[in-house]
Amino acid sequence: MVTPDKNTRIGWIGTGVMGQWMCRHLLNAGFETSVFNRTKAKSQALIGEGAHWRESPEAVAKASDIIFTIVGFPEDVEAVYLGERGVLAGANPGAIVVDMTTTAPSLAQTIAIAAQKKGIVALDAPVSGGDVGAKNATLSIMLGGDEETALAITPLLKIMGKKVTYQGAAGSGQHTKMCNQIVIAGTMIGMCESLIYGHKAGLDLHVMLKSISGGAAACWSLDNLAPRILNNELSTGFFVEHFVKDMGIALAEARQMQLALPGLALANQLYQSVIAHGGARLGTQSLMLALRHLNHMA
Amino acid sequence: MVTPDKNTRIGWIGTGVMGQWMCRHLLNAGFETSVFNRTKAKSQALIGEGAHWRESPEAVAKASDIIFTIVGFPEDVEAVYLGERGVLAGANPGAIVVDMTTTAPSLAQTIAIAAQKKGIVALDAPVSGGDVGAKNATLSIMLGGDEETALAITPLLKIMGKKVTYQGAAGSGQHTKMCNQIVIAGTMIGMCESLIYGHKAGLDLHVMLKSISGGAAACWSLDNLAPRILNNELSTGFFVEHFVKDMGIALAEARQMQLALPGLALANQLYQSVIAHGGARLGTQSLMLALRHLNHMA
Repeated sequence: MVTPDKNTRIGWIGTGVMGQWMCRHLLNAGFETSVFNRTKAKSQALIGEGAHWRESPEAVAKASDIIFTIVGFPEDVEAVYLGERGVLAGANPGAIVVDMTTTAPSLAQTIAIAAQKKGIVALDAPVSGGDVGAKNATLSIMLGGDEETALAITPLLKIMGKKVTYQGAAGSGQHTKMCNQIVIAGTMIGMCESLIYGHKAGLDLHVMLKSISGGAAACWSLDNLAPRILNNELSTGFFVEHFVKDMGIALAEARQMQLALPGLALANQLYQSVIAHGGARLGTQSLMLALRHLNHMA
Repeated sequence: MVTPDKNTRIGWIGTGVMGQWMCRHLLNAGFETSVFNRTKAKSQALIGEGAHWRESPEAVAKASDIIFTIVGFPEDVEAVYLGERGVLAGANPGAIVVDMTTTAPSLAQTIAIAAQKKGIVALDAPVSGGDVGAKNATLSIMLGGDEETALAITPLLKIMGKKVTYQGAAGSGQHTKMCNQIVIAGTMIGMCESLIYGHKAGLDLHVMLKSISGGAAACWSLDNLAPRILNNELSTGFFVEHFVKDMGIALAEARQMQLALPGLALANQLYQSVIAHGGARLGTQSLMLALRHLNHMA
């Protein structure tokens, strides 16, 4: 296994809103870094800062000791790792690959097994904290896979995040991220239903929020997203289509485990309604749209 | 209208877990105080500290300038105010009555109208913060009713609470409390479903919570009640039967306003299941019991 040191060659696949910042932190820390992104333009800034452009995930893997990926949907992760010119086709024995995309725990397990057959260790390391956390290197990183390898790369992950927590075998990082999203699904419903009730009851919602913040109703969504709703700012933040992807993964995993999660299922349905109303690329606070339409208030 | 000063005579009805502490703070501030409680034993400590026992809500009201009430269910509030030997039968013209029970906004409006006919001002002022908030005088108090009166008694309320916020016409304090409970209903579902998912996925829940706390999933329920669940401590905290009362009020008000709140309705149903399993007087974190039974994990 590779033990990361200052000569470790980094590979980075996926230089979108999150990945670009995370990769930049490693680049700024002095690591030689190879990059690939489906849309090359989104890597241009990093290339200007010294990253080496490679033509495929395979090429990135060939040139690197530790390869990080953060792409979009589970099918993207599958293509990047298991595809013809994918990471596992190029990675050298002894390499470490780390998927930071939020994806299916079962896919993380599949990749870990496929990697192991080639003498490669695959970890899952999804993050929470959004683009702000990526930029400020304050992400919470949830690690699954071989423990020794996970501990070995933790110093690298600490360059990108504030909190790095080992959660267990392959897929455990993803399962932990699902736990995170399941809580959020509940807080979003509670927060939005509270606002629509207060509005209908004729309250001044700004004043109402003063009364209920900081107590037993306190939550991140109430502090950060309720003000955006009052400000009619529905387009910023975490995309609905990504949250729906995450809830879909959690519900599919729950189904496989024969686990009924009625609250998550309801949140998923309400967000499907947001998508039906054209809100796929709005922020998650646009759950409010579904409740407004449901109540003929749109 | 009475303007509160150091000679204002206080009446207090309802000396249970919350009321006892709230009344004590006024007593300690030097006010002459009359008390009544359905079970006299629960007033004994306050009587020992100098409060005058009265034989009925009517008798308390006769002896007082400002009368506070904090009892159990809406039917108790109705009896205490509108009953034969109730507050409105005894209160002198110019008196102020303040109901701090969590009760129906429509009942608060009914009481305000009945009071007005007798030259009395009735305010609704439910609280959040629980028994700890009552003891430490850190409650959040949500005020509804005549604004001038509300402002006049705010200094008295500040003796019992940290945050006193005027919310609007009669019933607005209660509506605000409903907003608070609606958010909590959502956070409770999210928190409990997250724990049951994590458990089923084989995670160490203590370690999982480390990863997800402090980020976008952060909420009071996760910080304060998830640890109790992991500790198998289901009996402490806010009673399920009281939370179900609150959700019932919110759902009834919503129905009157023709407002569909599917998340709140689901939470209410799951808590009905907790009651079916004998959990009426457990803490709200025992929502976990409903999810366990639902998933044949009990």
